Amino acid sequence: MNRWHSDYHSPHRALSFEVTRSLYTEKSEYQEIEILETPEFGKVMLLDGVLMVTEKDEFVYHEMLAHPALFTHPKPARVLIIGGGDCGTLSRVLMHKGVDKLVQVELDEMVTRVSREYFPALTAACEDPLVELIFGDGIKYLRETQAKFDVILIDSTDPVGPAEGLFRRPFFADCKRVLNDDGILCLQSESPWIEDLRPVISEVNRDLHSLFPIVRAYSAAIQTYQAGFWLFQIASLAYDPCDQAVYERITEAGLKCSYYHANLHFSSFVLPAFVEKLLN
Amino acid sequence: MNRWHSDYHSPHRALSFEVTRSLYTEKSEYQEIEILETPEFGKVMLLDGVLMVTEKDEFVYHEMLAHPALFTHPKPARVLIIGGGDCGTLSRVLMHKGVDKLVQVELDEMVTRVSREYFPALTAACEDPLVELIFGDGIKYLRETQAKFDVILIDSTDPVGPAEGLFRRPFFADCKRVLNDDGILCLQSESPWIEDLRPVISEVNRDLHSLFPIVRAYSAAIQTYQAGFWLFQIASLAYDPCDQAVYERITEAGLKCSYYHANLHFSSFVLPAFVEKLLN
Repeated sequence: MNRWHSDYHSPHRALSFEVTRSLYTEKSEYQEIEILETPEFGKVMLLDGVLMVTEKDEFVYHEMLAHPALFTHPKPARVLIIGGGDCGTLSRVLMHKGVDKLVQVELDEMVTRVSREYFPALTAACEDPLVELIFGDGIKYLRETQAKFDVILIDSTDPVGPAEGLFRRPFFADCKRVLNDDGILCLQSESPWIEDLRPVISEVNRDLHSLFPIVRAYSAAIQTYQAGFWLFQIASLAYDPCDQAVYERITEAGLKCSYYHANLHFSSFVLPAFVEKLLN
Repeated sequence: MNRWHSDYHSPHRALSFEVTRSLYTEKSEYQEIEILETPEFGKVMLLDGVLMVTEKDEFVYHEMLAHPALFTHPKPARVLIIGGGDCGTLSRVLMHKGVDKLVQVELDEMVTRVSREYFPALTAACEDPLVELIFGDGIKYLRETQAKFDVILIDSTDPVGPAEGLFRRPFFADCKRVLNDDGILCLQSESPWIEDLRPVISEVNRDLHSLFPIVRAYSAAIQTYQAGFWLFQIASLAYDPCDQAVYERITEAGLKCSYYHANLHFSSFVLPAFVEKLLN
């Protein structure tokens, strides 16, 4: 009998999955990092017991965090990722031809080191000379940097512990300061099915509205995250993600994706009635 | 410590949830029926250990099975439901004003009897004089009936055991025979995330295409079904679910739904790239 792991999505529910073997376990300065081999999802990485990335469905989250914002901006040249240690988001950003600088600020160097070993398909893109990897506190980086960006992507863990500040207004205000005048911020925004996360979704939406003229939420079916249904929020200073020009850009680029495509870009911004209620 | 129940979505994964207490367990002629009280989902019904309906999120499945087909047809007067013993689908069909006859053919009378006791909000609609409840084999009913319908909804369990025939071409051909010349068939069509279900989705789609001029698939985020992401397929003899006239009908009707709305009707037909690949 193989071991099973339970990833708790609330105190009362979990995604349980079979584990063929444990490939790696180590405590970093910030968290416990585990790599498991599973029949259902291939190799998976857990941070403090929570499923972060799987070989089988990483494409959904990473495509859906990177592409909508990158295509909403007509010329995204300078991109900043906060978090994103497994480099799946980074690899998708580099598919956009106009990008000439990508800075990633990940708190935990060990996450990237372990990903290099177990998810080389994701981390290969780190070798690109356009990429600058910084290991440190993203909140501090945004408070202090004099650099400017066209797009900022927040690729964070859940809003507990070190990632909590990434869901707060002062952080969003720093993002705005660091964005160019027509910049775009996009953040992963948790699952609306989980009762405890609903206030976070609403507050983030309210805070973004207080800072940015254009705020839109969109969803994706991510089977390995809480309740299989995930939100993202885009806050934009000039461009509307639902503008027809975005459609043209997506089709012209002709990226081969496993989840994202031009029509899906637009449909993902149409949310179920109960989710619309959470947003302003 | 409360008991936890695991609903297996494949041999290698499960949705596990806490159970406060067991309210009912009985073996019917066809299956084991259980009603459990849970902190996460309220009251839930399991058939042979598989989560079928929950107080908390039943609205997604039932709204999304009933409304898209009912609004695609301009005048759905006669509706047939195969399965649907918990009566959640039936209750949504009756929200459509033009309906003047609703026949439901459920195999297992005990499912409806138990639902009346534990999900009275769903079964209340059974008392409507337009409703005729038949308990028996839906496949046999469709082979033999001389009645005609505008819309047929297949509200079935997974394609194993008694429900297997509901996913097969001869059954779809019988549905076509029983439909009026401009009739619509809609069926729940499983989760594209589950490896073993992918061939079923593809075959159903191919079989429907061989019988109906218009076939379209759509999705919904159903957190308590396999992998949280569910497909439905509509096969139509005359009306296209993505026609603009459908939008007008939805907004005119002004139903108060918790998941479904006019824009979502259309966005739900836009599927991720990996799902489009499964369909012809």
